[in-house]
Amino acid sequence: MGKIADLDIETDRGVPVDRSMLTTDALEVIRNPDIDIVVELAGGTGIARDFILEAMSLGKHVVTANKALLATHGRQLYQHAVDSAVGFAFEASVGGGIPILGALRTGLSGNRIETVMGILNGTSNYILTRMSREGRAYNDVVDEAVRLGFAEDPPDLDVRGIDAAHKLAIISSIALGRPVPLEDIHCEGITFITPDDIYYAGEFGFCVKLLATARMNGDSLEARVHPAMIPKAHILANVVDAYNAIYLEGDFVGPNLYYGLGAGRRPTASAVAADIIDLARRIRSGAGAFTPPLGHVAPPETSVRIQPIDEHEGQYYFRFSALDRPGVLSKLSGILGENNISIYSVIQKGRDKNGSVPVVILTHEAGERDVQNALRLTSGLDVLTDTPVMIRVEGWCQ
Amino acid sequence: MGKIADLDIETDRGVPVDRSMLTTDALEVIRNPDIDIVVELAGGTGIARDFILEAMSLGKHVVTANKALLATHGRQLYQHAVDSAVGFAFEASVGGGIPILGALRTGLSGNRIETVMGILNGTSNYILTRMSREGRAYNDVVDEAVRLGFAEDPPDLDVRGIDAAHKLAIISSIALGRPVPLEDIHCEGITFITPDDIYYAGEFGFCVKLLATARMNGDSLEARVHPAMIPKAHILANVVDAYNAIYLEGDFVGPNLYYGLGAGRRPTASAVAADIIDLARRIRSGAGAFTPPLGHVAPPETSVRIQPIDEHEGQYYFRFSALDRPGVLSKLSGILGENNISIYSVIQKGRDKNGSVPVVILTHEAGERDVQNALRLTSGLDVLTDTPVMIRVEGWCQ
Repeated sequence: MGKIADLDIETDRGVPVDRSMLTTDALEVIRNPDIDIVVELAGGTGIARDFILEAMSLGKHVVTANKALLATHGRQLYQHAVDSAVGFAFEASVGGGIPILGALRTGLSGNRIETVMGILNGTSNYILTRMSREGRAYNDVVDEAVRLGFAEDPPDLDVRGIDAAHKLAIISSIALGRPVPLEDIHCEGITFITPDDIYYAGEFGFCVKLLATARMNGDSLEARVHPAMIPKAHILANVVDAYNAIYLEGDFVGPNLYYGLGAGRRPTASAVAADIIDLARRIRSGAGAFTPPLGHVAPPETSVRIQPIDEHEGQYYFRFSALDRPGVLSKLSGILGENNISIYSVIQKGRDKNGSVPVVILTHEAGERDVQNALRLTSGLDVLTDTPVMIRVEGWCQ
Repeated sequence: MGKIADLDIETDRGVPVDRSMLTTDALEVIRNPDIDIVVELAGGTGIARDFILEAMSLGKHVVTANKALLATHGRQLYQHAVDSAVGFAFEASVGGGIPILGALRTGLSGNRIETVMGILNGTSNYILTRMSREGRAYNDVVDEAVRLGFAEDPPDLDVRGIDAAHKLAIISSIALGRPVPLEDIHCEGITFITPDDIYYAGEFGFCVKLLATARMNGDSLEARVHPAMIPKAHILANVVDAYNAIYLEGDFVGPNLYYGLGAGRRPTASAVAADIIDLARRIRSGAGAFTPPLGHVAPPETSVRIQPIDEHEGQYYFRFSALDRPGVLSKLSGILGENNISIYSVIQKGRDKNGSVPVVILTHEAGERDVQNALRLTSGLDVLTDTPVMIRVEGWCQ
């Protein structure tokens, strides 16, 4: 018989459970010789790690949904599973019930995957969807989402991109075959996005998404989470509300998309149950060895070079708020030009309600270092009334 | 060393292969005691079946991409794999490189799946996409597609829904846990769709797709392939060109979508390679038993009741071509009303270039038997100048 450990074993969860299965001592589960599979749903990066390491050392297979733990201590845990010759499954840690990790480990195993782009945080996607549909301000939508219980209070982990970065660290380890340390993922949130930016994105044929991207550029790997403009015709553009999706390109399979609810009790349960069933099938099959957690025979000891965000190249969107004076566009385009940034399209409309003129610029392919330099230089202009907004453009050619 | 059998072992395929691996005798591969996994890519439903049955009887694991064979003889093959205690994998048979069968068998194994809706034929989707974007006639687009090599000549298997029905038989066997005989799948093609229908679909907020649907209605299973109007906001609506996608709803995971190229050498190779790698991993792990082909322990002997198309209920689109005379709409709506079909919306515009007036009707939920009856009755009206067009509406409430 299985065992369930929880600090609180009194609250009725509406599921009929034999009381003799319940304990408040996790070690009673982990050290139980009759138990083959330990499911860690405690959360956090402290005691959960100890639980998992001990369970593996005792030859137990382990299932977890703990993305923060995997993002921060994944390498140690993946290696310990291999060393202990146990199965280690964590489908619920990325994309809720979407079976993306299984797809990467098994269904796409014949592919070299060079690009993964994901909408990995449902709360941010919900907020951006509402802002886009209703033209409402960020704070307005967030306040409502918190009030209705759709977002945590404060929703920092979600809206600052940290949750998405956790998931990107896990998925890129499997998809690209290289562990990506969390601290090497460039991370920006959506807190600065305004309805104006979403409107101008639409004028250029784009929508705004919080995108988690991992891509191999030669021998370097870029991994970043930030708001991005993507073409409305891109299949990711149609992923709205609290849905998640993972888009990837394999050298044989071509473009693939996996879509579903990225969070919630039932989708998470779907993924955890699938992991348990898969391990149970393998145990019953008499398997003496388990596919390594990342799908490769041995995780490479040498990390790949992580490309700093400075080296990013792509198209950029800028929105400057300027005084309504002659020569503003000339000054701005002058600074861009001096920094090798060539303009693809400009939108300049009448004064907004604060008396400023928005100058919106979409660039050709440019370098991040040049962009940052140009932004620093524009900050010295006395004609600007607010900090410029910069949003990267992704997937233009899809 | 592996072996490759082909009738033609002379043509250079651009892949370096040791000539000693080549043979024209398939049995040399199948009966080779050193070979663990037999990959059947011969195609057809004749000798391919014999090859697979013999390979399984000899204890070989089998990989195939042969959808026609699985759709017609799947039950026998699935059972023979179980009886022979071998692995049997056929990811490439549905959705090209999209690892949907693996997702159903493993990643979604904790779910009861009640609905599967797929765009499973890339050629039809390509034709409908071109018609929709360019307003061109069906024959015009097909002729060009055949000329450019995008469609077979004649493209009957694709455009008549037969290829999609093959795939639906396979996928619903796994997703719904019930083998669906091919002859029980109601099948209509896209050959009667006109640019006008696509235009009017757009007016109602729909697009037109060749949809393969399998759904549990209580104890009955409905399985059908036909053109369908789906809301433009449905995630399936954005699957264009030659792409395939499978949309499903699980009781825990909720809505899920899987998207990618549905055909082609490289996507097919991706799926076949993944199956081989998965079987090889299991063999190496020392597994003595393999997950049954459909994911269940034993395929139920008793088939589920297949719901005849007569019992379908849903919304319907009609386009009548009528003479420009008073009372036409009254006659048509009268016939519909007498058959319990209530009208949701009507579009009637001026005469078209043939002098007929199109009367386009979108119904509320109605029964197929009533619809067929009404269509029979309208065929007796002397004010109609052409056979009415009927297209079912799907996913209205998604």
